[in-house]
Amino acid sequence: MPEELAPHATAHIRVRYAETDQMGVVYHANYLVWFEVARVEVLRELGLSYKQFEAEGFMIAVVGVNVRYRMPARYDDDLAIEARMETMRGPLVKFVYRVVRKEDGALLAEGDTTHIVVDRQMSKTRLPEKFAARFRELLEK
Amino acid sequence: MPEELAPHATAHIRVRYAETDQMGVVYHANYLVWFEVARVEVLRELGLSYKQFEAEGFMIAVVGVNVRYRMPARYDDDLAIEARMETMRGPLVKFVYRVVRKEDGALLAEGDTTHIVVDRQMSKTRLPEKFAARFRELLEK
Amino acid sequence: MPEELAPHATAHIRVRYAETDQMGVVYHANYLVWFEVARVEVLRELGLSYKQFEAEGFMIAVVGVNVRYRMPARYDDDLAIEARMETMRGPLVKFVYRVVRKEDGALLAEGDTTHIVVDRQMSKTRLPEKFAARFRELLEK
Amino acid sequence: MPEELAPHATAHIRVRYAETDQMGVVYHANYLVWFEVARVEVLRELGLSYKQFEAEGFMIAVVGVNVRYRMPARYDDDLAIEARMETMRGPLVKFVYRVVRKEDGALLAEGDTTHIVVDRQMSKTRLPEKFAARFRELLEK
Repeated sequence: MPEELAPHATAHIRVRYAETDQMGVVYHANYLVWFEVARVEVLRELGLSYKQFEAEGFMIAVVGVNVRYRMPARYDDDLAIEARMETMRGPLVKFVYRVVRKEDGALLAEGDTTHIVVDRQMSKTRLPEKFAARFRELLEK
Repeated sequence: MPEELAPHATAHIRVRYAETDQMGVVYHANYLVWFEVARVEVLRELGLSYKQFEAEGFMIAVVGVNVRYRMPARYDDDLAIEARMETMRGPLVKFVYRVVRKEDGALLAEGDTTHIVVDRQMSKTRLPEKFAARFRELLEK
Repeated sequence: MPEELAPHATAHIRVRYAETDQMGVVYHANYLVWFEVARVEVLRELGLSYKQFEAEGFMIAVVGVNVRYRMPARYDDDLAIEARMETMRGPLVKFVYRVVRKEDGALLAEGDTTHIVVDRQMSKTRLPEKFAARFRELLEK
Repeated sequence: MPEELAPHATAHIRVRYAETDQMGVVYHANYLVWFEVARVEVLRELGLSYKQFEAEGFMIAVVGVNVRYRMPARYDDDLAIEARMETMRGPLVKFVYRVVRKEDGALLAEGDTTHIVVDRQMSKTRLPEKFAARFRELLEK
């Protein structure tokens, strides 16, 4: 996420012991879990609930992820997971993220995820217009 | 699982790095994941597939677990996860487990899990007779 | 945890998507992760940091767990994980837990975990007196 | 991994129930865990053990990951996780991966990971020459 852009939502995470590995730092796959927590907060900021989204028969599948790890997160760290919806192009929605250690503001990791909307059979489908409209508003901010 | 009893199935696991924590050993919740892998092997030994079971609208929910950890499992250890169906009482099915380090036969952990059969709405239901019959045969072994 | 006893600390958890499985509910091993989050909060309430505890060369290893699952936790549920230190007998410390759905106060699960203090070589050791003293105070509450 | 290139090693994985989420498919973060399992197999093929590598005071930290998900992996699928060491440039080592469903050869996902060698204090260090030599041999294959 370019430094000058503000997040659409921030999730606050304290690192769990289960998230560490024997290297003494957070296992790298967990950042994807945190990205998702922050992504859901973006929807919540819009007054949208991902749970409700699924209840209506839609799901947001992940088609791509990229993460660049700069400094390790450690057990018990307080982290801000910042998320921003970056683009919506046809069926594809892209989010960008920053993982920031709250104690000193250090940038620990950055990344992005790309998604498509699917139905219960995992077939590509259109984002329902009520969601698309809110997403477009967000992208203009 | 009493020492004199043989497992109904054994799953072979090599400890993944992701399963360790910063204590330098396997994080304790992962043993439950391994128990499940072995439990499914018991069904497979019976010619039953848990995947097929779910496809028919039944699920086996966990209602209780107990684990006693004796020695830590470590990264890259080769483990035998031994499982045995112990009892079937009405809607409840109980399995017992042993986690054995293959290199030296050390018993690392023991445990049990208790299950009920539920339908897609998570309501308690009867085990379909074709499954129950196979389970009874197994319990007599 | 007997109903009439108050927790020593409560952790507040919102269920993550990663914690669900294809049964549509939380995968049962995750409750152990939540128990740990709450257990650490008990120490924090005492002004003790588990991170500091490890930095001084001590670790709290898990030697036993028991969980009884009553109702499934689901994606996006707001949960209170209540923890209470129950006993300290020689080298063994036992905690008890309740998982409560905040929306309606439903008790979703209960459990306990037993621990021993070990050093960096995973050998049993004594709990340092400054910790033991605080633990004893807590047990009298 | 370009289609015409052969993997240096292949890990064989059966999808665990714990790896699914309520979308009914594998949760996307688990592919990173599988990549690591396959990466370790590349070292093992070289007669190198990652466990031994760490015992000598070196660790291979992840600095970047990319994954492109093409089709969902599902519970109980038999998967081949193919890994290939692609480049070694100064302190950076890059691996590429393919996730293939064994039943029909379908390509489910592709990705790459980039690593640096660090010491126990997580400071960048040189790959020990005995490892570097084996890595160079591999890159020429």
